[in-house]
Amino acid sequence: MDCDVYVPRLKASISQWRQQGVKGVWIKLPIRLAHLVEPTVKEGFRYHHAESDYLMLVYWIPETPDTLPANASHTVGIGAFVMNNNREVLVVQEKSGAFGAKGVWKFPTGVANQGEDIWTAAIREVKEETDIDTEFVEILAFRQTHKTFCGKSDLFFVCMLRPLCFDINKQDSEIKAAQWMPIEEYMAQPYIQKHESFKYVAEICSGQSKSSCSGFCPVPALSTSGKKSYTYFNKLQLQNKKNELGG
Amino acid sequence: MDCDVYVPRLKASISQWRQQGVKGVWIKLPIRLAHLVEPTVKEGFRYHHAESDYLMLVYWIPETPDTLPANASHTVGIGAFVMNNNREVLVVQEKSGAFGAKGVWKFPTGVANQGEDIWTAAIREVKEETDIDTEFVEILAFRQTHKTFCGKSDLFFVCMLRPLCFDINKQDSEIKAAQWMPIEEYMAQPYIQKHESFKYVAEICSGQSKSSCSGFCPVPALSTSGKKSYTYFNKLQLQNKKNELGG
Repeated sequence: MDCDVYVPRLKASISQWRQQGVKGVWIKLPIRLAHLVEPTVKEGFRYHHAESDYLMLVYWIPETPDTLPANASHTVGIGAFVMNNNREVLVVQEKSGAFGAKGVWKFPTGVANQGEDIWTAAIREVKEETDIDTEFVEILAFRQTHKTFCGKSDLFFVCMLRPLCFDINKQDSEIKAAQWMPIEEYMAQPYIQKHESFKYVAEICSGQSKSSCSGFCPVPALSTSGKKSYTYFNKLQLQNKKNELGG
Repeated sequence: MDCDVYVPRLKASISQWRQQGVKGVWIKLPIRLAHLVEPTVKEGFRYHHAESDYLMLVYWIPETPDTLPANASHTVGIGAFVMNNNREVLVVQEKSGAFGAKGVWKFPTGVANQGEDIWTAAIREVKEETDIDTEFVEILAFRQTHKTFCGKSDLFFVCMLRPLCFDINKQDSEIKAAQWMPIEEYMAQPYIQKHESFKYVAEICSGQSKSSCSGFCPVPALSTSGKKSYTYFNKLQLQNKKNELGG
């Protein structure tokens, strides 16, 4: 679409929307229409968010404070605590990054893909990095960190998984080494001992056993809009409640 | 900056970066430089993300798969479970939206601001909607929902807070009414009974007492980069572990 056609049409539409009492107006411009970004901004639009292949612009027409939905604010990461029956934990050494340089043995970690459930991401990352199949048990802890990248925040979920096999076959591009390591040895690493947030997590994991169930388990439930979503909570709590009710 | 000046400089820089073996290149264009978006895209850049006042573009130069950090994928919301000593829960009716139209009495809810901690957001929203001061107790549950807005996901945290005062003074612009309601009455609402995810949360909250501590509490800890962040976990679990260790 040509600017000469687009701009008069946009002006006419805005004037019509204003008369109709429309509040928020959204324009999604695919990246191939990048030449229309400037004229859209000139008509009063601001940026809302962008993905690789499009830019979303928005214009709040009335004088009242805008009630437009917020832009996404968080990335979601997972760390996987996988322990075998010998109290050995599945750990990896990364090829690059801060951990790689220090030679720290760490849990498999990764970033959840857009639209991916936390529990699914944990199973996927363990499989990708070590080829170990697992089943999800519970979330033991999570950490919220701000200003991780471009002012955004991060939620990092520590997930406990049960191994379904034990022969490691490490991924080559990012992982230098992988092994089952006695949990005491993992915890004794100077890096873990030195950093508060790692130490907490190591202590929580180390204290965890199948019977205690102090974490949050995913339970599928339909949302009000009929979408399948997972609610994570302490199942023991709901069980106690049901027993109380005689349920 | 003029396009005639910008484009030759950008071309020269890209050629230099390529020679130097630079991998990822970032360009942050303030919205006042919207006229430079199109020429930047023409040189091979794609969008990464945008905020109200800027657009971030990125160019991965080598042939290898890009390892650029992901764009933020989640909004973060909170719901506040505030109960007084008479087992009455703080509830509001909203003026607009799906809940408002149905006349549902619901917990105060809201969206965490960029950079705001979950527990801080919960205290703020209760204060804004009802003028009740609270202290944070724990997170009882959370729900992950996908495709909530423009393909993004949402993490909604159900937070238990202890009221420090009891006289409600509701906010006028968004809240139609607010009250302390017996928890049984809250739970008996057809809307809550009808929707699985609400019913779970209501049951968890109803079963919760101060002594059971089955939720996750925020504990401050320095991250590896020295930033103060909060790790949320079941404190009882860590306590058990410490007792075990004789700590």
